[in-house]
Amino acid sequence: MLRRVAPIRFYFDFISPYAYLAAKTVQALGSRHGRTVEPAPVLFAALLNRFGHKGPAEIPPKRAYVFKNALRLAHAAGLPLAPPPAHPFNPLRALRVVGLEALDEADRWRAVHALFDATWGGGPGVEAPDTLRAVLDAAGLDGAALLARAQTTEAKAHLKHQTEAAAERGVFGVPSFDVDGELFWGYDAYPHIEAHLRGEDPVDPDALARWADLPASAKRR
Amino acid sequence: MLRRVAPIRFYFDFISPYAYLAAKTVQALGSRHGRTVEPAPVLFAALLNRFGHKGPAEIPPKRAYVFKNALRLAHAAGLPLAPPPAHPFNPLRALRVVGLEALDEADRWRAVHALFDATWGGGPGVEAPDTLRAVLDAAGLDGAALLARAQTTEAKAHLKHQTEAAAERGVFGVPSFDVDGELFWGYDAYPHIEAHLRGEDPVDPDALARWADLPASAKRR
Repeated sequence: MLRRVAPIRFYFDFISPYAYLAAKTVQALGSRHGRTVEPAPVLFAALLNRFGHKGPAEIPPKRAYVFKNALRLAHAAGLPLAPPPAHPFNPLRALRVVGLEALDEADRWRAVHALFDATWGGGPGVEAPDTLRAVLDAAGLDGAALLARAQTTEAKAHLKHQTEAAAERGVFGVPSFDVDGELFWGYDAYPHIEAHLRGEDPVDPDALARWADLPASAKRR
Repeated sequence: MLRRVAPIRFYFDFISPYAYLAAKTVQALGSRHGRTVEPAPVLFAALLNRFGHKGPAEIPPKRAYVFKNALRLAHAAGLPLAPPPAHPFNPLRALRVVGLEALDEADRWRAVHALFDATWGGGPGVEAPDTLRAVLDAAGLDGAALLARAQTTEAKAHLKHQTEAAAERGVFGVPSFDVDGELFWGYDAYPHIEAHLRGEDPVDPDALARWADLPASAKRR
C-alpha cells in the first residue's frame, strides 16, 4: 500500500501580493516533493485584529516598501505584477467564494488562480460583485451561482471559523504554510519548507528547548 | 581621479536576530561590490512607537516563529545562533556605545561584532553594564571608558536623534540598508540589494508611478 502523505495547507488572503506570488508557485513546490497543496482562505484583517497588529499597508513607509519588494520578487520569479484598482480593498466576497465547501479541489484552485490574477496580475480586481462574477465566469466557473452561495450565512460563518482556527493554530500572517504540522510564514520561507520536506530542517526539539523558557528582561513602554 | 562610491548604511538594533545575521554578512556583501558598510545603531522600540507597530517578540506565535526562522537562516549561513540570557532585553547602553562619535570605523565595527556575538552568538548578553564592559575589553577596546562616554547626555541625544532621522528617512524595521539612497529592509533583501548594486533593480520610476496614487477602497475597523 502506498503511504499517503498530507497535503501542504496554504493560508492566504487576496489582499497580499506575497500571497499572490505564493499562489502562483506553491503547487510547483509541492509537486517537487510529491505533495498536493490545499488552499485555505483566511481574512488577514481578522488575524491583525486578533493579534493587535498592523498590516504592512497601515504603515506608510512599509506600504511603499512592500510594493517595491513584491515587484522585485515577481521579476525574479518571472511573474507579472500590477496593482489592483484599489488597495487595501475588501476581499471578503472573494475569500468566501474560494472557501465554499461545494467546490472540489480542482475548481477551488481554478478560482484561486483566477481571483489572484484579477487582483495582482493586471486584472480588474475582485471587490465589486459584477467584476467578481465576470472573472469567475471567464475561468469557466458559474460566477452567479458561486456568488449566491458565498452570501449565505453558512459561507460567512465558514470563513470566520477557518480564520479563527488558523489563528488558533498560530497563523499570524499570510501567506502561511502548514507542512505536516509545522507552520511556515512568508513567500521567503520556500528554502526552509523544502529543507523540511527533505527531512533536513535544522530546527529540532533540542534546538528549540533553549528558546522555550527564555525570560524577558525589558518591555516596551 | 577615482570615483568615490558611498558606503552602505546598515541600520540595526542588537535586539534583532536578523540584524545579527546581517551584521555578520553585510561587509562581505559590500566588498563584493567595492562598498564599505557604515553601522547605524537605532532603537527598534522607538521605531515601533513611532509607527504604532508591534515587534515580532510582542506577538506570541510570531515570537516563536522568528526564533525558528533565525535558526534556519543561521544554519544556512554557517553562523552560530543561540538565545541571549533574556529577550526582549534593554539594548540602549549597547546601542549608545556603538554609536559614539569618538569611535573610528574600525573600532565601531569591532564593537558591533563583539556585542552581536555576545547577544546571539552564545555570549553573556549586553544588558548588564559589567557584562558589557567585559565584552568590550575582551574585544580589545576600553570598556570602562566607552561605557562612561555612552552615559553622557550627548551620547543619549545622539542615539535618539539617529533613530528619529532613520524613521524620517522611512526606516520602519531592522535590519535596514541604505544603498545610494534606496532603502532595503530585512536580511532576506540581499539578492535585491545586490541586483541594485549591479544596476539591475527592476524597480524604476515608471514601475512605481502605477502604485503611487493607488486609492484605498477598504479600511480595517
